[in-house]
Amino acid sequence: MPAYSTNMKLKFPVVALLLEIITIILYAVFVVYDVGDGHPSDHHGTENKSHQESPVSLYPMFQDVHVMIFIGFGFLMTFLKRYGFSSVGLNLLLAAFGLQWGLLLQNIWHLHDGKIRVSISSMINADFSTATVLISFGAVLGKTSPVQLLIMTLLEITIFCINEHIVVEFLQASDVGASMTIHAFGAYFGLAVARMLYRPGLRNGHENDGSVYHSDMFAMIGTVYLWMFWPSFNSAIAEPGDAQLTAIINTYFSLAACALAAYATSSLVEKKGKLDMVHIQNATLAGGVAVGTCADMNIEPFGAMLIGVIAGIISTLGFKFLTPIFASHLGIQDTCGVHNLHGMPGILGGLAGIVAAALGKKANITAGYQAAALASSLGFALIGGAITGLILKLPFLGQPPDQNCFDDSLYWEVPEEEEANESLTHTDHSKNKAEA
Amino acid sequence: MPAYSTNMKLKFPVVALLLEIITIILYAVFVVYDVGDGHPSDHHGTENKSHQESPVSLYPMFQDVHVMIFIGFGFLMTFLKRYGFSSVGLNLLLAAFGLQWGLLLQNIWHLHDGKIRVSISSMINADFSTATVLISFGAVLGKTSPVQLLIMTLLEITIFCINEHIVVEFLQASDVGASMTIHAFGAYFGLAVARMLYRPGLRNGHENDGSVYHSDMFAMIGTVYLWMFWPSFNSAIAEPGDAQLTAIINTYFSLAACALAAYATSSLVEKKGKLDMVHIQNATLAGGVAVGTCADMNIEPFGAMLIGVIAGIISTLGFKFLTPIFASHLGIQDTCGVHNLHGMPGILGGLAGIVAAALGKKANITAGYQAAALASSLGFALIGGAITGLILKLPFLGQPPDQNCFDDSLYWEVPEEEEANESLTHTDHSKNKAEA
Amino acid sequence: MPAYSTNMKLKFPVVALLLEIITIILYAVFVVYDVGDGHPSDHHGTENKSHQESPVSLYPMFQDVHVMIFIGFGFLMTFLKRYGFSSVGLNLLLAAFGLQWGLLLQNIWHLHDGKIRVSISSMINADFSTATVLISFGAVLGKTSPVQLLIMTLLEITIFCINEHIVVEFLQASDVGASMTIHAFGAYFGLAVARMLYRPGLRNGHENDGSVYHSDMFAMIGTVYLWMFWPSFNSAIAEPGDAQLTAIINTYFSLAACALAAYATSSLVEKKGKLDMVHIQNATLAGGVAVGTCADMNIEPFGAMLIGVIAGIISTLGFKFLTPIFASHLGIQDTCGVHNLHGMPGILGGLAGIVAAALGKKANITAGYQAAALASSLGFALIGGAITGLILKLPFLGQPPDQNCFDDSLYWEVPEEEEANESLTHTDHSKNKAEA
Repeated sequence: MPAYSTNMKLKFPVVALLLEIITIILYAVFVVYDVGDGHPSDHHGTENKSHQESPVSLYPMFQDVHVMIFIGFGFLMTFLKRYGFSSVGLNLLLAAFGLQWGLLLQNIWHLHDGKIRVSISSMINADFSTATVLISFGAVLGKTSPVQLLIMTLLEITIFCINEHIVVEFLQASDVGASMTIHAFGAYFGLAVARMLYRPGLRNGHENDGSVYHSDMFAMIGTVYLWMFWPSFNSAIAEPGDAQLTAIINTYFSLAACALAAYATSSLVEKKGKLDMVHIQNATLAGGVAVGTCADMNIEPFGAMLIGVIAGIISTLGFKFLTPIFASHLGIQDTCGVHNLHGMPGILGGLAGIVAAALGKKANITAGYQAAALASSLGFALIGGAITGLILKLPFLGQPPDQNCFDDSLYWEVPEEEEANESLTHTDHSKNKAEA
Repeated sequence: MPAYSTNMKLKFPVVALLLEIITIILYAVFVVYDVGDGHPSDHHGTENKSHQESPVSLYPMFQDVHVMIFIGFGFLMTFLKRYGFSSVGLNLLLAAFGLQWGLLLQNIWHLHDGKIRVSISSMINADFSTATVLISFGAVLGKTSPVQLLIMTLLEITIFCINEHIVVEFLQASDVGASMTIHAFGAYFGLAVARMLYRPGLRNGHENDGSVYHSDMFAMIGTVYLWMFWPSFNSAIAEPGDAQLTAIINTYFSLAACALAAYATSSLVEKKGKLDMVHIQNATLAGGVAVGTCADMNIEPFGAMLIGVIAGIISTLGFKFLTPIFASHLGIQDTCGVHNLHGMPGILGGLAGIVAAALGKKANITAGYQAAALASSLGFALIGGAITGLILKLPFLGQPPDQNCFDDSLYWEVPEEEEANESLTHTDHSKNKAEA
Repeated sequence: MPAYSTNMKLKFPVVALLLEIITIILYAVFVVYDVGDGHPSDHHGTENKSHQESPVSLYPMFQDVHVMIFIGFGFLMTFLKRYGFSSVGLNLLLAAFGLQWGLLLQNIWHLHDGKIRVSISSMINADFSTATVLISFGAVLGKTSPVQLLIMTLLEITIFCINEHIVVEFLQASDVGASMTIHAFGAYFGLAVARMLYRPGLRNGHENDGSVYHSDMFAMIGTVYLWMFWPSFNSAIAEPGDAQLTAIINTYFSLAACALAAYATSSLVEKKGKLDMVHIQNATLAGGVAVGTCADMNIEPFGAMLIGVIAGIISTLGFKFLTPIFASHLGIQDTCGVHNLHGMPGILGGLAGIVAAALGKKANITAGYQAAALASSLGFALIGGAITGLILKLPFLGQPPDQNCFDDSLYWEVPEEEEANESLTHTDHSKNKAEA
């Protein structure tokens, strides 16, 4: 075990402020409002929008996505018993930096008179770009320092934007709900980072790597918000009108069918037919991931439901059987099981998109380019994640030692133990302890 | 006490997957998107909508209702100290199945060329149909197995759709916020089921049939979301324009006035004038229920406030005085007190609608048909609930024995006790226990 | 220490019901729906809105603001270990009364044929008016009775409406996100009340004046919702179109930059570079407050980010260094640190507005009138708060004695201790206690 310096004093503030200052300077040079002077934004998803529409008509959809990013992802990760501050707190930090960086990188290819024009649509895409980081965060949750995570955010969003540009502009592939470019990308990027940061010392688990009753309840807040607002995620940048309605409906039904499948599979694989909270918190959402690529395609509601059922089953089976094998045989310690929620369902989504393209379910796309988009997303994720993981191994980045993993108190002021005790039980245990 | 088989292995997965497979087959036959080919949906609430409007203009309202169903109802029931997984988890399961089933049954009367055309409006109505089940779930909370609840969902939504069809199409009654067809129906259906499932063994209460401090806090998440978004519930299917605005305003003021009345009454009936969380979590919402039927009528804001005040008072009094009598004298063990939140306020709403009709507060409705609608809703609820309750008594449905009621651990993997202890108090009690 | 009568029996119900009855009578006389009969509302923010637009087009924004008021403010204050019921529960009570009272007082200057016409826009403004009270509530949290708080609501909203009328109508100052009229006003009003209610007995702190692990988690629900929906708060009453879009974008970026600055500063001032939950819960939001006044002005995204960074830094420094000095030297015990979240950032926002006006960033406003608006808001707040504080000292208002501060059990039925103990630890400590 190498010696670690986990003291964040100076290191973290300097990195955070430096990133923010650089960002502000770039914004001063490049970023303006997309307000009406005859140059409407041509960002994808908005080009065919009637100019008569209000510039804020997409705002309710943006807020749904915003809630998914900050409440959904944030609380979903609070299932760990001693890592809630970090889960929801660092989620906020990374997404707040990520959206600023993502907006820059996503639009640097679309300058108008040398400027990036910010609209609600570009805010949605900026929020989207942070989702990749939050997915990867799930893979390394509890085993990384805030400085490592900020650097991962910077690198991952940069690589994401390159891949997204290739998929959307060069391959002209369809991925409205981003099964490939966000979910599969974010998952495999995170898994590659986790592989690089493999900790033999955690081979036999860690006492804090698990939930307690009320931390599982907090996590359900995240789950339910993600589940409810996923139709907005998959339809926010769809073509307004029928395509957007189709994306909403497909996602609504895929998730509903996925929930039944996840519950059924969880009961089937657990002893005595009990339900497992890990499955319910995650696998119920796999239908939203898997229907992403073909959400705006004419696959009919029952097609969306079939995708949802398959996603719910493979995701639950992944948690039960694959995750332990990944940890024990592949050296991949995937804290949140992002491979099961985002990885496999993301690939399933990409494959469904290839099939749908072959069946002519959407105009102007081909199975070949869809397959190329999936391959590109996976390639950038694995290579980008591996390189990022190597960089994160640099010793001065404050990585926690094994015994302090999954524990807020390394990077946060945590309320006194005695108070926690007292407030919850209203009894004075100090006497007992003194006697013991 | 009969012998129960509460092992869900096979039983639950088979029922859940079977229901999902049947549903998908029916969707393959019947369900298509309501996209633009000259046949706009004529589902009620949308027929007069300008076809120029976006097909997703109701989507923000839908999402508010969606949040009420999944967060609102789900977390409201987490007040029980050991039943949070089931409350929010089974709420998700039942609503996910219910919305699929409800959309089929509600629209089977409105086929277009043999097809059901899904729009945002029909998604709102599908969500609505699940509310009946979630209300009834509250009456039997903690005393039923997942298999029983899935079967209740199937039966209750079917019966709900028959009654709704009668009320809306035959009686042409007005019930925009569904005081009668959802709230009164769901409550009395659930009470009838609870009567059939009466447990003499719980006559003297159960140690887990109560809250702890933090479970009451989780429940307040549900309460506040229901309270905030109720104006969307009562206005979502109102006529666009002034009627919808009226429904929003009436519900906003009814709830605000109801909150004051509920707080005042709670303090009045509790010893030392203290507030009771049960009242605050529930009775503050009664104004939303009671103003439902006449939400879109011209009752003026002060009329809505009067309805809210009355609802807040009778609901609080019901919790204090009626619920104990129901349990001790009528054999009705109403876990969440749905009679006080949905039953009496639902009837109050129906009566207010009758009076409003008689006073001419809305065109094209009559007091007589409004009264018939209320009677129909109560009749279908009581008879349907009684029959459903009898079916749910079938011994192989996995009903929990008395001593395991209100306890997640019968149907869920629950985190280890020792970890919960440790994580919350950070002290090692095992030593004490060993010595004790 | 004077003798207190904290028994709320009769006292609280009578005050609450009396206020509600008076309100209903005033509504019966004055309040009608703003429905289409050729007299569109001319409430500020709506006058230039096309009459072709739907009367509910602002409804999604209203609901975002509604969530901020009831979930955001309510849960933000649940950080105290034994005061969660009061925080979220009294927040609901005060806001429910406040919105009814605020709608009356805000519109009494805008009668149409002797009537107040309620629209979504006036509902947004009514919700806004309650924010002042909820901010002040934060300053006196844990040290006041429900009766005191209802009276504070009545007085503060009345004074707020007078100041708002002066700022908007006489000075014609611009304050779209209400940095001055809501945030600075609410903070300094609350601080003045807190000064009047100074408790020497709490000079050395109180054992319940702090958080526990899970109460900090509940508080993060409030933080994240406020953070996410602040763009709606600052843009809800902006001119539809480009000004509204600008307000959204400025607030989005100000908050994102503020978050980085708050995290960095928190780490910088805490020992070992750890993060402090108090800073994260509050200072991350200061950017939303500070950008309020000039949210709809052409300050460019990087300008908004600079405001956010400054706000995040001064807010964190305020929590660390100023709040203790206020308590020890000025006799101001500011429970939630509203001076740091709303006070200083509110003044910063007012100053930024003065500078922006001087630089011509918005038509029709001048630096002088902006400065006068800030002075007016601070003056009304300090004098109004001081008078209100004096009134709240009246002995029959049920103020809690020092030892019962920050404790729900004085005004609420709180679940039995032993149950809390049992449910959380699943062990029987009673045996230990008996032996001890």
